Amino acid sequence: MAAMKVYLAGPDVFLKNGREVIAAKQELTRRYGFVPNVWMGEDDAPHSTPFAFGLHISAANEAVMRDSDFIIANLTPFRGISADVGTAYELGFMVAHGKPAFGYSNDGRLYAERLTADYYKGAVAKADDGMMRGPDGLMVENNDMGDNLMLDGGIEHMGGVFIRRSVAPEHLLDDLGPFEECLAAARARLLGVAA
Amino acid sequence: MAAMKVYLAGPDVFLKNGREVIAAKQELTRRYGFVPNVWMGEDDAPHSTPFAFGLHISAANEAVMRDSDFIIANLTPFRGISADVGTAYELGFMVAHGKPAFGYSNDGRLYAERLTADYYKGAVAKADDGMMRGPDGLMVENNDMGDNLMLDGGIEHMGGVFIRRSVAPEHLLDDLGPFEECLAAARARLLGVAA
Repeated sequence: MAAMKVYLAGPDVFLKNGREVIAAKQELTRRYGFVPNVWMGEDDAPHSTPFAFGLHISAANEAVMRDSDFIIANLTPFRGISADVGTAYELGFMVAHGKPAFGYSNDGRLYAERLTADYYKGAVAKADDGMMRGPDGLMVENNDMGDNLMLDGGIEHMGGVFIRRSVAPEHLLDDLGPFEECLAAARARLLGVAA
Repeated sequence: MAAMKVYLAGPDVFLKNGREVIAAKQELTRRYGFVPNVWMGEDDAPHSTPFAFGLHISAANEAVMRDSDFIIANLTPFRGISADVGTAYELGFMVAHGKPAFGYSNDGRLYAERLTADYYKGAVAKADDGMMRGPDGLMVENNDMGDNLMLDGGIEHMGGVFIRRSVAPEHLLDDLGPFEECLAAARARLLGVAA
């Protein structure tokens, strides 16, 4: 049987050491018996306009997702308290195709904890309607989940796991421990190899 | 022919006036000849645990999406500089099903503008590798797009439009002008009624 192909989703490409991090993820992926499926054609993409370039990358990523058997999504909070929206889009895209989905975050806290502590600085209170709300009136949703319920729910529906561990803060965006835990979980579930 | 069903995605439910905003969106949707497809069973969802409740909502939303003909996604920046991640997930989910996708944002700026001004407070500069980067080393991607390229790209691939207008700041989250522009664009494209 040909090895299963995994789509490695995440904002890793934006990191200063992005190339090294992506190469390390690919190497780890192979070590766990999977083929890392990422599109490496950026250098050949059209640069006529920034918009055309963006569209090309988007279409290429969607083609790679269609060609992949499952997804491991880096859902570490990115430029805020939630996952990268491009990665969230890709997770939904793969779940819609009925493909197994795994996720990880290098911040071990629940969404409600990040929202309350990091975003509202503790200023949440029960409102007239009985809901916990921030000073801006927005509801503080708390489903004991790592992020928005669509993300946690999609992974769960597909039988995957959402690994969350707080790593050293200076390696929030490039620690690969939780990613490797995802690989082990995927290997156990998809290849029947005990973790 | 039965009227087309549209999935109304967005973080509207978190607003203090969420019920009113959602009701107004449904009414506008009907006025444009579509059936608003939203799940209203929250009161009957299991509350055994917050996690079980969240999973139930997630599964219900996915079922409504499968039952919908197209999506209009509220991509207004939510608790940060990007769209709500749950909405991004849903946009990817619908595009994966090959369904027409429309989006709107009540912030008319490009992602790169919000990132540079709101997130980095102007502190971006060309790095050694020739890329524009923030002081944290992260790349400032600029594809002349409203948000992450996967979101803009998905809408574009499905022949939709991403309407962006800066509304009065105090109505950033509940102004329905750009939403109505989306409805007009959807009616023109899907029902052949000139805008």
